[in-house]
This record gives sequence, C-alpha cells and structure tokens, in this order.
Amino acid sequence: MTAENTHPAPASDPVEDLVTVIPAGGVGSRLWPLSQPHRPKFLLDLLGTGATLIQDTVARVAPLSTRVLVVTGERHADAVAAQVDVPRENLVTEPSPRDSMAAIALAAALIEERWGSQVMASFAADHLIPDAASFRAVVREAARVARDDKVVVIGIEPTEPSTAFGYIEMGGALSGDAREVAAFTEKPDAETAAAMLARGGYAWNAGMFVVRTDVLLGHLDRLQPTLAAGVREIAAAWDGPARAEVLARVWPTLTRIAIDHAIAEPVAAEGGVAVVPASFEWHDVGDFDSLAELSGTGADAVSIGRTAPVGAVAARGPLVVGGTKPVVVVGVDDAVVVESDEAILVTVRASAQRVKDAAHALEGA
Amino acid sequence: MTAENTHPAPASDPVEDLVTVIPAGGVGSRLWPLSQPHRPKFLLDLLGTGATLIQDTVARVAPLSTRVLVVTGERHADAVAAQVDVPRENLVTEPSPRDSMAAIALAAALIEERWGSQVMASFAADHLIPDAASFRAVVREAARVARDDKVVVIGIEPTEPSTAFGYIEMGGALSGDAREVAAFTEKPDAETAAAMLARGGYAWNAGMFVVRTDVLLGHLDRLQPTLAAGVREIAAAWDGPARAEVLARVWPTLTRIAIDHAIAEPVAAEGGVAVVPASFEWHDVGDFDSLAELSGTGADAVSIGRTAPVGAVAARGPLVVGGTKPVVVVGVDDAVVVESDEAILVTVRASAQRVKDAAHALEGA
Repeated sequence: MTAENTHPAPASDPVEDLVTVIPAGGVGSRLWPLSQPHRPKFLLDLLGTGATLIQDTVARVAPLSTRVLVVTGERHADAVAAQVDVPRENLVTEPSPRDSMAAIALAAALIEERWGSQVMASFAADHLIPDAASFRAVVREAARVARDDKVVVIGIEPTEPSTAFGYIEMGGALSGDAREVAAFTEKPDAETAAAMLARGGYAWNAGMFVVRTDVLLGHLDRLQPTLAAGVREIAAAWDGPARAEVLARVWPTLTRIAIDHAIAEPVAAEGGVAVVPASFEWHDVGDFDSLAELSGTGADAVSIGRTAPVGAVAARGPLVVGGTKPVVVVGVDDAVVVESDEAILVTVRASAQRVKDAAHALEGA
Repeated sequence: MTAENTHPAPASDPVEDLVTVIPAGGVGSRLWPLSQPHRPKFLLDLLGTGATLIQDTVARVAPLSTRVLVVTGERHADAVAAQVDVPRENLVTEPSPRDSMAAIALAAALIEERWGSQVMASFAADHLIPDAASFRAVVREAARVARDDKVVVIGIEPTEPSTAFGYIEMGGALSGDAREVAAFTEKPDAETAAAMLARGGYAWNAGMFVVRTDVLLGHLDRLQPTLAAGVREIAAAWDGPARAEVLARVWPTLTRIAIDHAIAEPVAAEGGVAVVPASFEWHDVGDFDSLAELSGTGADAVSIGRTAPVGAVAARGPLVVGGTKPVVVVGVDDAVVVESDEAILVTVRASAQRVKDAAHALEGA
C-alpha cells in the first residue's frame, strides 16, 4: 500500500476528473422470489439494513465522485430514480439489454461528449462492500494508474477457492500498488481454484475497473469499430432532440459482447491492463447461501426484513426473509424460507444454486 | 362376517336402541399451526374435502343412529354447534377436561336419564373412515353383541406394525364375528409390534366401543363408585334448573381417569369385553406424515386447502397446506409447508412428530 492508502482520504474528497458509472442490470434469479424481472436484485434491501444495493453503491462512491451515471433498463429507470439521488439526465436507459460492452461504451462516449476525456470507474450496482473507506482508497489508487493509459481492474484478494468468480492472474509490479495483468481466467473448477490459491498471485475479478474514457474508446475503435461508432453516434445525439430516433435506429445494431471479451482479455494480452489488489471485504451475494453466510446464520435463526418471530425445533440456523407471520422450522437444518408479495420459497442453503429454476417450476405447476 | 354384514343395510336404517356419543376433545398438537387450543383438530377440514372431521364423523353415524350426543369443552360448544346439525341439548359441554371416563360416563348417565337403558356407541370426533358403509355394518354387529351385556370394542385389522396405537389381544370366539378380548396392550415398541403382527390375533385399539348404558354404569358403580355417583348426580340435574349449580359443585371432584384404565382393562380381565374385528380403512391422522400419506403425496406436489400453485425443484413430493401464495420447494425431499392464519410451519415428513414442539419454539423466539 502507498502512504496515501494507509491514511485514507477524508470522508468527502472527490477525485476531480473521476466519473462513476454504475451498470444496473441482472435480475439475480437465484434470489427469487425477492428478485424478479420487474424487481431486480440491485433494487432490493437484501440485508434488511434499510438501504437497497444500488443505494448502498451510490452512497459508497459519492464522497469520491461528484458525477455518477447509472446505466439501466428503461423499465427500471423510474424505480432507480425513486431510490437514488442521481440527476435524471445521468440515468442512461437502455431500450433493451445488449450486454455489458454496449452499456459501458455508451456511458464512456456520453462522458466524452459532456465533459471531454475523464477517468471513468465502473462498479456493479448489486455488490456489497462493508468497508467503504478502504474501497475508496483503492479506487483513488486505481484512478492514478488509469491516468497512465492503463485499463485498471481492481483485484479482490481471494479468501477461499471460490468457483463463482473469474480470476485475475497478476504479473510484474508497476508503480505504487499496481501490477500488470498477465491474464484473465474464466470461473475455475474447484481443483483449479484450489491450485491457484496455493500458487498465489491471483485475485478475484469483481468486474470493477477504472479507465480513461479516451483509452477505453480508443481500444474499442480498434477492437470493435462498429460498436465504437454506434455508441459515439448515440452519445452525440443523447442530450439533443434526436436521441429517440438515433437510439431506436442504432441501439439494436450494436454487437452483443461482454466487456471482458471485447476489451479486458485482448488488451491484457497486449500488456495494457493493470490490477490494483484490494483486501477489502467484497460480496456478490448471488444466492441465499451467501446471504445466510453474510447474515451470520449459525446455530440460531436469522430474520431479514421481518419482525414476526422465527422458531426452530431440531433445525440449525434457519434464515427467514420477509413475510409477516411467525415461522417455525422443524427438523430441517440450514433451511431458507423466503416470502415476497408474490410467492414463498422453501429451500436449504446447499440447494441455493437451484433456486434459479424456481420461477420456472411454478409455471409448470 | 355374518350374513347381515356381507349385505350392508340400506343407507339409512337406524338401530332403534342406539345412541351415538362423540367425544370431541384433544388439540392435535402435532398438526400445528392448523390445530391449536382454540381450533382443535376435530374442527378442521384436514383433507380439504369440504367437511371437517367432526362433520364427517356425524355424517358417518347419522344413518345408523337418530340420537347423537357430542361431548366437548365449553369453549368449543359454539364452534361445534355451527358445524354439525346436533340439537343444542345434545351438546354435552364439560366445564374443564377431566379425562375420557368422566366425559363418557356423563353421557351414559344422561342417556339413561332421558331414554332409559340404551346401546351407546362412542367414536372419536377426529378419525377418518373412508368406507362409512362398512363402518356402520361393523357397528350393527357390535350393537348386537353389546345387548348380551358385553363391553364391545371395535378392533381394526393392523396393516403395519404401528407403534402409534394400543393393541387388542383377541381371545376365543363368541357369537357372530365377535371374539373375547384377552387383554389390552399399551402402544408397543417397534420390535414388539412386529412380533404381534407376525403372531397374529391382535387388532388396533381405535378407541371405538359399543356398550349398554346400564352395563357401563354398572361396571362403573363397582370400579369407580364416586365417579359413578358424581355423573349420575350431574345427569339427574342436567335437563333442569340446577344443572349449573350441580355441575360447578360436582364436576371438579370427578376422578381423572381414562376409560381404558377405569373400565376396559379391568373388565377385560373379568372376561366382560368382546371385540368385533373390522377390516375397514381407519386413520387417526395424528401428524403431517400421516396426512401426506393419506393425501397420496408421492413424487408430485400435493396441495390441501389452497388453490395457488406449488412448484418443486429437486424436491420429491412436497405437501403444502393452506395459504394463498404460490410456493416453490427447492432441494428438500418430503417437505411439508403449512400456512394458517397465524403462522407458517416448514418441516419434512420424517420430523412430523416433532411438530408438537413448534408452538413452544415460537414462544421462546
């Protein structure tokens, strides 16, 4: 860590050339029935803290970044506007999902149109980072490295051989905390993950990156020229009367590709990606097993988003989410009982991944 | 079977000297949260057929018996009156529970007061007997035997070595289908139950008996003289102005004892008890495992008392009772999900016995 990072900046000390982009997409189908297409994960107060995930994300970056863009689907724009204090013109609404590269490239092009080249930082709307100050210190360091023409990813120090994330293979040292990215790897199997942790030099890819807009769009011009031209055309029209016409004409033609494949992997192969390692706690909270873990479910029952009591008979650590009636679990360890306005889910932590099929099972019932 | 029994009587062909007594007590705590002290099992439509257990019981005896008495707690009298078409004067309300002998002896004494000596048949209010015609044929046979001064129990042919019921050890043949009762045995352990089934000559004691009131009260005069005197005094005052005074004075003094211990066991030892074996299907439905069994829960989901769909993902045969929201069970075999107005229970069939502790678990939560 640099001296700057071991002495975190004051609570609010914005980085002047920084614009934060928050892509808010993804339903979170393993969190059904809390998350659903009309109410995706980022709109949920998943831990019952009083703040939704996107509110938490916006609050986390606010002291660092006076300008925040949220990129989300048109159908969620009103819900996002109701939840977070982002000017309506900074809500970038996609007519339809065209994968992450189109969303982020449009944001980058829009930033260039409005403010010229800036350092852009992108963070998913639905991740949890309890220690916001440490997070901001790492982003400051990443912004510093990004000014040197690098695509900078934040690499989370692995705490277990998770098979749920892609990994960043770290290479030689750069300035400060930064290191080169040797390669990105896909989500590994358990054996590979264990081997990587034993070998060391790997970080989790949390999808957080910091890059100058001109650097990002320059890579895009080379690697995905039609996509680059498309988002530049849309961005040029965005703040004027032609937005709807241009969007309707151009958006559907944009190449569907993830930023990992479009930029991160090929640019890393060219030596253009750096990683700033981070040791702060980070959670994707993709399913009820991780929610239970995060909520401290152990021997006792844990309730989220409810006030009625939960009882357990011969049942270790039930997690009960939502609902207004008392719940008793008898003889089922690690039970998860979730009630939304629409439905009730009963499962166990070990089956958390299968919850993605729950809505479909109901259609056939 | 006698010729009479193999040709069942017409649907309604009452036995002239028969009075049916239906003791309606017992919460059914393993069926929580459906059954609760204020809403005991006999008031529930447990199978979702449209009839509660006591309604089903009354309908089953109606073609056989023009006079039906229901003995129940004072707090349940209004609910019983609302459910079944029994004249209010035939609702025998107990000020407090004093075990089965007091309840049944009071009914017997009241029958004698009103109609002189009659054949009295007693059936619990919360058992299920799908084949009502076969049931009535057996009761006719039992009434015939009862006229010969016997206490007659109906013995259910065991279909498995159940440990949930007491057993009747059958002795020598009497007239018709009847046999002597050699002895009653308590609920056996699994090994003993298996041995009894292998040996043969045992029937389940379903608590159904038929006896002349003068025979029953005669045994009671000898074996429990103060109890006999007490119920005779109450019965004499029942249909007059002194009922409340006598009930308040005498009822609390009555010996608390089960009819099994007060009459059945000692009279059997004297050779005074007969058994009429019965092969009709009979269910106590004491817990959610037996309810699931009875509802035909197998690979597919079964719903009772609800219309919303039930889905299952990697989950064999869930039973979902009550509630208005769709329910999906993921990764839990044999799940039981029960919703009442007051609470939600989540368990599995193998833990059905532990449900009796559920309400208590909630008190501590």
